[in-house]
Amino acid sequence: MRIQKQISMGAYRSDGFIEKYQRLVSSTVIPYQYEVLNDRAEGAEKSHVVQNFINAGRVLRGEDPGDGFYGMVFQDSDAAKWIEAAAYSLNNFPDPELEKQVDELVAVIAAAQDKDGYLDTYFTIKDKDKRWTNLLEAHELYCAGHMIEAACAYYESSGKRELLDVMLRNVSHIYKVFMEDGHGGFPGHPEIELALMKMYRLTGEKKCLELAEYFINTRGCDAGYYKRERASRDWTVWGNNADDNDYQQSGVPLRKAVNATGHAVRAVYLYTGMADLAAETGDAELYEAGKRLWDSITERQMYITGGIGSTVHGEAFSVDYDLPPDTAYAETCASIGLIFFASRMLENEVKGEYADVMEQAFYNTVLAGMQLDGKRFFYVNPLEVIPGISGKAPTHRHDLTQRPGWYACACCPPNAARLISSFGKYAYGESPDTLYCHLYAAGKVRSGNGMELECETEYPYGFTVRYKVSGNGNIALRIPAWSERYDLTVNGEKYSPAPVNGYVHIPVTGNSEIILVLDDTPRFVYASPAVPRLTGYAAVCRGPLVYCFEGIDNDGDVLSLKLDTGAGLSVHDEPDLLGGTVKIGVPAVRTARTGSLYTSEKPHETPCTAYAVPYYTWGNRGENQMRVWLPTAR
Amino acid sequence: MRIQKQISMGAYRSDGFIEKYQRLVSSTVIPYQYEVLNDRAEGAEKSHVVQNFINAGRVLRGEDPGDGFYGMVFQDSDAAKWIEAAAYSLNNFPDPELEKQVDELVAVIAAAQDKDGYLDTYFTIKDKDKRWTNLLEAHELYCAGHMIEAACAYYESSGKRELLDVMLRNVSHIYKVFMEDGHGGFPGHPEIELALMKMYRLTGEKKCLELAEYFINTRGCDAGYYKRERASRDWTVWGNNADDNDYQQSGVPLRKAVNATGHAVRAVYLYTGMADLAAETGDAELYEAGKRLWDSITERQMYITGGIGSTVHGEAFSVDYDLPPDTAYAETCASIGLIFFASRMLENEVKGEYADVMEQAFYNTVLAGMQLDGKRFFYVNPLEVIPGISGKAPTHRHDLTQRPGWYACACCPPNAARLISSFGKYAYGESPDTLYCHLYAAGKVRSGNGMELECETEYPYGFTVRYKVSGNGNIALRIPAWSERYDLTVNGEKYSPAPVNGYVHIPVTGNSEIILVLDDTPRFVYASPAVPRLTGYAAVCRGPLVYCFEGIDNDGDVLSLKLDTGAGLSVHDEPDLLGGTVKIGVPAVRTARTGSLYTSEKPHETPCTAYAVPYYTWGNRGENQMRVWLPTAR
Repeated sequence: MRIQKQISMGAYRSDGFIEKYQRLVSSTVIPYQYEVLNDRAEGAEKSHVVQNFINAGRVLRGEDPGDGFYGMVFQDSDAAKWIEAAAYSLNNFPDPELEKQVDELVAVIAAAQDKDGYLDTYFTIKDKDKRWTNLLEAHELYCAGHMIEAACAYYESSGKRELLDVMLRNVSHIYKVFMEDGHGGFPGHPEIELALMKMYRLTGEKKCLELAEYFINTRGCDAGYYKRERASRDWTVWGNNADDNDYQQSGVPLRKAVNATGHAVRAVYLYTGMADLAAETGDAELYEAGKRLWDSITERQMYITGGIGSTVHGEAFSVDYDLPPDTAYAETCASIGLIFFASRMLENEVKGEYADVMEQAFYNTVLAGMQLDGKRFFYVNPLEVIPGISGKAPTHRHDLTQRPGWYACACCPPNAARLISSFGKYAYGESPDTLYCHLYAAGKVRSGNGMELECETEYPYGFTVRYKVSGNGNIALRIPAWSERYDLTVNGEKYSPAPVNGYVHIPVTGNSEIILVLDDTPRFVYASPAVPRLTGYAAVCRGPLVYCFEGIDNDGDVLSLKLDTGAGLSVHDEPDLLGGTVKIGVPAVRTARTGSLYTSEKPHETPCTAYAVPYYTWGNRGENQMRVWLPTAR
Repeated sequence: MRIQKQISMGAYRSDGFIEKYQRLVSSTVIPYQYEVLNDRAEGAEKSHVVQNFINAGRVLRGEDPGDGFYGMVFQDSDAAKWIEAAAYSLNNFPDPELEKQVDELVAVIAAAQDKDGYLDTYFTIKDKDKRWTNLLEAHELYCAGHMIEAACAYYESSGKRELLDVMLRNVSHIYKVFMEDGHGGFPGHPEIELALMKMYRLTGEKKCLELAEYFINTRGCDAGYYKRERASRDWTVWGNNADDNDYQQSGVPLRKAVNATGHAVRAVYLYTGMADLAAETGDAELYEAGKRLWDSITERQMYITGGIGSTVHGEAFSVDYDLPPDTAYAETCASIGLIFFASRMLENEVKGEYADVMEQAFYNTVLAGMQLDGKRFFYVNPLEVIPGISGKAPTHRHDLTQRPGWYACACCPPNAARLISSFGKYAYGESPDTLYCHLYAAGKVRSGNGMELECETEYPYGFTVRYKVSGNGNIALRIPAWSERYDLTVNGEKYSPAPVNGYVHIPVTGNSEIILVLDDTPRFVYASPAVPRLTGYAAVCRGPLVYCFEGIDNDGDVLSLKLDTGAGLSVHDEPDLLGGTVKIGVPAVRTARTGSLYTSEKPHETPCTAYAVPYYTWGNRGENQMRVWLPTAR
């Protein structure tokens, strides 16, 4: 059952740390991405995204197709994610110029839709007859899903329904193919499931719900589907292995699944749609499956940074406890998808662990995915980088020491943009009588039940969160698991009921003031000894932020540092560093380098202080060593 | 200049530890491999090795080629390595039945030689016109090299020259192709260089020396060779990248090379031939290049076990200091090749480090490559195995938890057999006036200069080495770098000149007794902090043996162990364990498992004793965890 839901578009106005990021997305990321979509960004690889839509429109009108299709088979989705990000951003910061760009792009997209509702430039331009014959690889349903999300967001943001109508026609077409004509397949890259649930909730269109149910309930029931599909066509996009049902999350019916496997982004997008459906229909069995998959990810396959999908081989989950820091894949998009999944699990059941993970993934992997100036992006987020090895050794080629510019496969940057721009939806939730504060986000919130809230906080660097609330009802306030102690006062009085499932529920009437003071003590964190790569190592965290040690703060060499976990950590405000941050000083020893590869002489150790900065800020000061996990001296 | 050389065939009669291994090779490995070559071994993959020669003979006689060629392009080399191992073994333990088998196989091989001297079943059976058109991949010169080595060994061992004559004719053919007809290429897989040097020294045939010089001096001078070769043919064996000169060790003239790169076995085979040539011709520049390459391997790219070639990607060297224990490739054959290289470097210059590495590679990686019963083999030698991850995670598929039986690509087992059977050549060397004791090998030695020596030792488990020497001259005795202290007495008198380059030179006349007592104290070993994967970790060694921690000796869990390097190690004789071994007890702590993936509570640690066994014995007691390197508690 849907206990509570994300607040609606426009219900949150950011301030503080989140506003800074939302303004960066608005001022830099979205304009730059627009240039990329239109092939006008200097130094970026050609994207051809807008041109693909223009050329598809020409094909449909029987005109010369120009220079045809160019790019990845899922190139259309870049436009969709950009529109979605722009929609949220327009809601945050009105911008007539940007709105005009969106409207123009929507018109181009609308012109690329076939009479029967079909919309995908790859097949429209290349070969109409191959539509729906390669669900395994060709991302038609994935692209449709993203455009549905864009349509919903832009309609909610602007009230304009041209793209929404385009996508309702597209859904009707897909409905016909899968529900009436009996296609029998399901998406190679899940995404449309969660999009259909969004559209259903926005428009009430039953076809959306039926299609989502169909895709989720069909998946894994016919384990031979992709194999037969592969056998029936003489072409492939990438030569994906149609037999690898684990990779495709298609080996067992989804509601029976126990382990999160395969391509990490696909997995969490799928589980998000599944959690949406469980909440919408009250399907307890489906929610239980979601909980098993959640545990499989967060208890056995997740980095401390909220990164998931540890292996570059297929951008995928590996096996339990295989969490190498240096060869990590940990795609930015996968952590974004994990936040989606967490947010939907929260709608099924209000549990602190869902919000804790949402926060862990956001403040660490997602923010690390973007340069502080918003101009360069990581797709892959290693927890250790050693120049000379990272990016060079055959097993480390994907782990770059510096954020590159735009990728040919550009899924992550617009994904980060849409998440950051819609942060309020993840931070705050509502039910008829309660306003949920899942994350600590400065700014103003109006909930659908008439409550208003103003949040003041320097979070994630300040640990006092002040809420001014007006209206009657309940405030449900998450107490994060990492906060060993906290103080809560309501209207000046100490308030101390034990949290239930990680949340304190506070009844409010009229005007109330709630002050939450969380634990600001930096802490060492240890991994389970079940993780071979992390035995004997510790990391440093403060609040939701995972810290890392960079060479530039540590005499150019973090490899010879060992942490003294028996001593106290020091906190150093650095308003002028890395956009304003807090360094942590960690008692440590530095091991002398002997020059020989192996020695039986115990290396000399000199006490020192190691300095750590938040992981999300790494790689912003040139190429240097970086480690999240360091060995311990004691 | 060739300062000293390996003792000749028959000059060493083993005893003790080495005899046990030589008998195992004679009684089990060689007979089993013979069955494999003849496709009669139960459970082994089909090899077709002998049948390929039979079928090639049929083709040459214009008969029906039977079932044609089957197997790897270098399948012939399995027969060669088997003959070579059998030759040494026959010299150790006469065996008329085995000799008959060799003679029969030699006859089959001789019948597969073309009139012009060409001998390679792949091309003879498949397509004669493609001879010498794919040096990059097709291993013709590699197979020839192995057969030359076999021919030399069998002639030396038995005095029979049929195979030697076959291979002299083959060399004449190759000489014509490369030296007279101006082919212009050089071996994709080096091996023939060192083989030609062996044959030159045995027969005095100048063509051998000229060809070896040609291949070594040509390599890398024409960096576009493989690319042009690739462009000129319309077929490939594996699709090797002809542009990857680093992988092919062909980007710079060998004598200018600085870093060991590419396929590890190819590299060390090549460097062996190069060191042979440097010694033979007194080419100081070539020896200097050899020293640079030696340092590149042993100071920056070698595992503590003497394993080299750390990455599975191309079975190759990675970058400096990239030495992952768990995803190690460290092919058995590469360590065997490293021993060849070390032995030839010793012939150029008597330096303890060459013999130290020879010993390190032999007692650890090479012996670990073989099950204690001689029936199963590791090709890949990880320094850490965790069931559930090893062999399963996409990055760990090659790291098996148990030795498999025979491989389709069967290079390692016969390579180990030939090395073990000829151990005396690596252990002892001679010059006109000196007998060199490089390794401590029990048994009797006669040197070419008339000296005789008898060595008694329980090495590598006993650390007293007694030599009875008769004859006049010098004994050069290596003092290993790992032995922090040692006692040396000559005829009962303490003998204490400082070692020169790791060797003590002892003049002897008549009958002498030399007793060397090495340090038997187990020790912790630390890697340079330049190796990211080993920071904060320590290993345990005793004498030449690297130890490892297996689950079976440690309550099934080595991941939760941390070593206390501030405390003393204990030594436990275990005559009934693993064929007779010594366990080491290491003060340690065991970290409690909390169940959660990450925790900020410092895990509870309980003092305990961790038990280690020699690395070469690992994986002989069923599947369980194994680690060479453990984190340190202090």
